[in-house]
This record gives sequence, C-alpha cells and structure tokens, in this order.
Amino acid sequence: MNNYRLNQQIQFIVEIDKLKTVLRQTMLTDGSRRENSGEHSWHLAMMTMILAEYAPSEVDLFHAMKMVLIHDLVEIDAGDTFCFDIQNNKSKAQREAAAAKRLFGILPENQGKELHLLWEEFEARETPSAKFAAALDRIQPMLNNKATKGGTWQLYNITHEQVMKRMAPVEEGAPQLWNLVQETIEECIAAGYLQPPKSTTTTQG
Amino acid sequence: MNNYRLNQQIQFIVEIDKLKTVLRQTMLTDGSRRENSGEHSWHLAMMTMILAEYAPSEVDLFHAMKMVLIHDLVEIDAGDTFCFDIQNNKSKAQREAAAAKRLFGILPENQGKELHLLWEEFEARETPSAKFAAALDRIQPMLNNKATKGGTWQLYNITHEQVMKRMAPVEEGAPQLWNLVQETIEECIAAGYLQPPKSTTTTQG
Repeated sequence: MNNYRLNQQIQFIVEIDKLKTVLRQTMLTDGSRRENSGEHSWHLAMMTMILAEYAPSEVDLFHAMKMVLIHDLVEIDAGDTFCFDIQNNKSKAQREAAAAKRLFGILPENQGKELHLLWEEFEARETPSAKFAAALDRIQPMLNNKATKGGTWQLYNITHEQVMKRMAPVEEGAPQLWNLVQETIEECIAAGYLQPPKSTTTTQG
Repeated sequence: MNNYRLNQQIQFIVEIDKLKTVLRQTMLTDGSRRENSGEHSWHLAMMTMILAEYAPSEVDLFHAMKMVLIHDLVEIDAGDTFCFDIQNNKSKAQREAAAAKRLFGILPENQGKELHLLWEEFEARETPSAKFAAALDRIQPMLNNKATKGGTWQLYNITHEQVMKRMAPVEEGAPQLWNLVQETIEECIAAGYLQPPKSTTTTQG
C-alpha cells in the first residue's frame, strides 16, 4: 500500500486477530470449551449497550465501549492471567505494560498513544467510565459461571470470600447492578455452585 | 431477581453467548480454525475504532459500532450463511427475520424494538452508518483471506468476479478504503491466492 498510515492501521487490525486464540479460564455457557478474549470483549461491548441505563450518569458510554473492546489486547503477548492466580498476578503489570508498548506501537503514533491511554485508563479504574467497564468485566464471568453450574469456581475451589472480593468493584462502578450480583451469588450458593461463606464465629479457648 | 426488566436483559446477555459457537467460513489469520461470529463482531467493532477517520462525515460512529456488534446475532438461530452459497442465501432473509423476532423478543419491549430496528438498518444498507458498517464487514474477511494465503477463496474456488462483486459495497460505504481493497486484491492475485480475472476477450467464430 502506498498510504503508510493506513498500512500501519491494517497491520494492527491483522495483528489483533491473535486475541481470538488467547484462552480465558471462563467456559462458554454451554460448557463446550473455554472462552477466548476476543469473544469475551465482544460480550462486554454488548453488555455496555444492553445495560447502559444502569450506568452512572457520568459514564461516557461510547468511551466505556471502546475500553472494553481493547482492555484485553495486551494478552496477545502477556497471555490471560487468571484472576485467582496469585503467583502470575505478581508479574502481570510488567508483562502487560511491555505488550501494550509493542502492540499500540504498531499503530500511527497519535492513534497508538490514544489507545495506550485508553487502556491505562481502564487499568487505573479511576474514571466513572473505567469503573463501569470494570464492573461489566466482573459480571460477565459470574453469569457464565452460574450458567455452567459453578464453572471455574468449582474447578479451582474458589471460595465465597474470593468471589466477593473479585466482585467488589461492581458496587462502586455500577451501583445499580450490585443487587443483581448479590442475588446471583446467593442463587449460586443455594444451587450448590459455590460454597457458602465460612461461619465467622471463632472457636473458643 | 425481583427486577423483571433487568431479568429480561440478563437473560438476553446469557442467550447471546451462543454466538460464540456459530462458525463462519473465514479462518483465523493463523489458519488454526474457523472464526466464530462473536469474535468476528468484536473485530469489526475494533475496525470501526481504528478506521474511524476514513468514515464519511455523515457516519455516526457509535451507532455504526452498535450495528456491527449486533449484526450477526440472528445467526444464533439461523446459522451463518456463506456469502457465496447461492442455495442457502435464498432462504436467508426468512430464517433471519424469525431469529430476530425471537432473540430481540427476549429483551424488554422498547429495547428489543430498538435493537430490531438497528439490525434492520444494517440489513437495508441505506444509511451512511449502515453502509460503513457493511464495508467493514466486507474488508475483514478479505484481510483474513489474504493472511491465510487465499483462505475460503481457495477452498471454494471463488472467482475474482465473485470477490469483486462481494467487495463492491466498500466503494460506496467507505470510498476512502476502496483503494485499499483494490490493492489488496491485486496483491492476492500476484501472490497466487486468488485467480486473476478471466480475459474478457470473446472467442471468434
């Protein structure tokens, strides 16, 4: 191609096809296989549309949608780091920062910088749009875990405490959806998909 | 859940997970497997972002992005119809209309209607946003076919004439990207990924 700028953009578009081969721990709702990060990102974008009315008024929905679309791109180099994997989460930030530099570096400079900032905004979880995007990123695997009778919670013996810690950002990022989370977790406990919280009563003596 | 409206929306979000199991003919760029319609829709949404500057000024980019996100949902019931499959394309409209009715019917009425209209807008390809969305939907498989040395063109002996007919909506929907299409097709012919156009010279006698 003669157009250097467009050529860089097309290179990037071809490169990110690889996100479709990055597997997450979450299963599809039919339990047939693990979900990949490309289709996961699509699902979050759909949730941004469908659940838009529950976003706090400060949320810029187009901006939040762009954020969920790109939030996992760094996994092309860094791989998906399972949220409950303590060891690999220690090196996650460094691995992902290097990935972001390479990947967004394929784009024309101004556009690469724009996407890099958008990804950093998602990671920092400080703006209302980033908090809302993060909330959706927590809710989607919860729904898939419910649909697969506990899914990764069962597979890795994840505790109620771990799940609630993971879900916590929903309360701040999408307070109108917090009740949904609490009810869904209760339903999962009642159905035996997740172990109930351990009694907080301490033993005496 | 006590909230009936939210319950319908969550049902829809869980239902559309199925789009991840609908396989298209297109291969991933690494040739490892066929692409599914969920990850394909994500790729188009990414292209809407990355190629935004080439959209005609009348295009509403957020609207176009929503359109590419939902454009294939009907395939959950109707399956993916290969663009070069003449027989199955005859029944495509009817199968997809029934699918749209069922799927969008899961949502609260006003939201279901909104999405149904959005899908019909994409299908009708009359508005600038729908034409731009359709153009991206043509360019993405072309890029994947190039990356896989001809991909489905080779597999099904698709002719240059068929490909150019398929690509034609790009010229109207994204005229600034038409040159890219022409050059890419020429590169594919030069590399042997696509048969050159048949000579238009008629035999004498």
